[in-house]
Amino acid sequence: MRIVLDAMGGDHAPQVTVDGAVQAAREFGVEVILMGRREAIEAELAKYDTRGLSLPIVHASQVVEMEEHTMAVKEKSDSSMVVGMKLVKSGEADAFVSAGNSGAVMAAALFNLGRIKGVKRPALSAVYPTISGHCVFLDIGANTDCKPEYLLQFAIMGHVYAERVLGLSNPKVGLLSNGEEEDKGTMVVREAYQLLKRSPLNFIGNVEGKDLPAGMADVVVSDGFAGNVAIKLSEGLVVALFKMTKRELTKGPLTKLAFLLMLPGAMLSLPGAILLAPAFKRLAKRFDYAEVGGAPLLGVNGVVIIGHGRSNAKAIKNAIGVAKRAVEGRMVAIIEEGIGEWVSGQKE
Amino acid sequence: MRIVLDAMGGDHAPQVTVDGAVQAAREFGVEVILMGRREAIEAELAKYDTRGLSLPIVHASQVVEMEEHTMAVKEKSDSSMVVGMKLVKSGEADAFVSAGNSGAVMAAALFNLGRIKGVKRPALSAVYPTISGHCVFLDIGANTDCKPEYLLQFAIMGHVYAERVLGLSNPKVGLLSNGEEEDKGTMVVREAYQLLKRSPLNFIGNVEGKDLPAGMADVVVSDGFAGNVAIKLSEGLVVALFKMTKRELTKGPLTKLAFLLMLPGAMLSLPGAILLAPAFKRLAKRFDYAEVGGAPLLGVNGVVIIGHGRSNAKAIKNAIGVAKRAVEGRMVAIIEEGIGEWVSGQKE
Repeated sequence: MRIVLDAMGGDHAPQVTVDGAVQAAREFGVEVILMGRREAIEAELAKYDTRGLSLPIVHASQVVEMEEHTMAVKEKSDSSMVVGMKLVKSGEADAFVSAGNSGAVMAAALFNLGRIKGVKRPALSAVYPTISGHCVFLDIGANTDCKPEYLLQFAIMGHVYAERVLGLSNPKVGLLSNGEEEDKGTMVVREAYQLLKRSPLNFIGNVEGKDLPAGMADVVVSDGFAGNVAIKLSEGLVVALFKMTKRELTKGPLTKLAFLLMLPGAMLSLPGAILLAPAFKRLAKRFDYAEVGGAPLLGVNGVVIIGHGRSNAKAIKNAIGVAKRAVEGRMVAIIEEGIGEWVSGQKE
Repeated sequence: MRIVLDAMGGDHAPQVTVDGAVQAAREFGVEVILMGRREAIEAELAKYDTRGLSLPIVHASQVVEMEEHTMAVKEKSDSSMVVGMKLVKSGEADAFVSAGNSGAVMAAALFNLGRIKGVKRPALSAVYPTISGHCVFLDIGANTDCKPEYLLQFAIMGHVYAERVLGLSNPKVGLLSNGEEEDKGTMVVREAYQLLKRSPLNFIGNVEGKDLPAGMADVVVSDGFAGNVAIKLSEGLVVALFKMTKRELTKGPLTKLAFLLMLPGAMLSLPGAILLAPAFKRLAKRFDYAEVGGAPLLGVNGVVIIGHGRSNAKAIKNAIGVAKRAVEGRMVAIIEEGIGEWVSGQKE
């Protein structure tokens, strides 16, 4: 298997991208094509022992910067993103992974790979951590204004991803809304509910904001606006709660507890904070979607995995791992079949 | 000041409502009119020493149940909600407080009090806890499909509430979106951005999900769909994180830490969990909006405070406190002026 990595994509490229690629080649036994400025990549690669690993470099002279407008990919035809997508399109590579400018990756994918037949809008998904494990949450930002049929298609694509890449059988699909009842939601959500009810999916109905971390559904479908608000709120709230908890640990009732245990308050709160810090850092990582290995862009005609701009080497490695599982699970073909069956099913 | 309390509203009525009313009458020196079934209220009231307090009972034979449809208020004309609203309408009372069926309270308010002149849609707001304090967040569920001008009006009403009831001067107003840039958001959000930019408000632009708990703005404006998802997600995430953290505290690196400190792991993780529990419970309370005293329904022609169905006596007392500050701050009149000025300003 050959996976193209955008070696120039992300806040810490090409250092962490090359590091992650080396790790991935070693751990997953895949070929990782390092796409970008040859000299910069070679300089990084020289730092590692790469004997026995397949890490070819394909030169691309241009770089789409993190803060550039999405449409930069139209002008930068020799950028790592555009050349990388073309390798997937021509069949020379099986998947594309980037931690670069996510809007630009989406645009590059649409222009160069196009959509899967029947797919109206590609969606960006995330693997969201829950009490019991995780769920697939989509769309988290690709489509702000959605039609009901887009939401149905997101559900189909999320279902395939959950089953084929995450290994969940007959995943439960929920529709994010402002109430459990069938008549809750915007007009678009209420119509999407009816489409989902008639679909062959394991649709469990509306889920509310609180049901997302509770793990009520395996696939949670949303428009890209509310989905983006929810994913960023989750990240921000974990950080905020960490700060608030640190403050709470030095306050009121704790002192009372310290007294009860007949220990000085300082001695109790110090180990408390020490204990808490690593636990909270691990939790914060669970909510940083780079940690779960990048978010797949579902619905484009090829496997495209988008990592967080802040990705470290481990996140890059994990994103390559996600790409590998998506290729092995024939994700694109299965989505095409799913969308096709449902479209023809509706026509009957 | 005379505040009507729906003594029959909430999961634990009339026990906690009467308890909260007694506390409020004592602490705030206001008259609390207990509205509902006289016998049931009298039985509860007999448990307290109410000498010197003003706690008249006004009988209403019907009760709108928590799970009833919103429109039940149309048929139940002798319910505590409807009769209570009428007391506010006639000027016999200054404000209405209920922890009952929130949809029904909204409907009762609309039918009996009507909207403030110029207000298109009333909005349900919450006081959202942030790292630095709190912010006003609205709409959290009254209006799923919104027009740009509704969002502008929510901003004006949130501004007045923040200034008059919470005492924040020149509050910073942010618009919830899926990116900071002016061109991010749904079509409705992008249009609302332009209206807000031209308004006399202290508009700081778009805020993202993560900026809500970070306390970036004093007033955060959203449609009722994304707002409801965000508020319920916040509540749910705090609960989920508490469970996850408890689990993390008994895992991996902790054991390593215990070893470093040369203490058995069990001894360390136990006080860790003990320390954590009360801190987390206090945090969970900050995110339970009943604790901050109920959410005001802004835009109706009278002070209406809606508490959480799970309200305890303290929450009822706090909701009455919020009502008192709203009356003292002339919230309804100031909203009418604000909406009026802006409407005439636009017409010039």
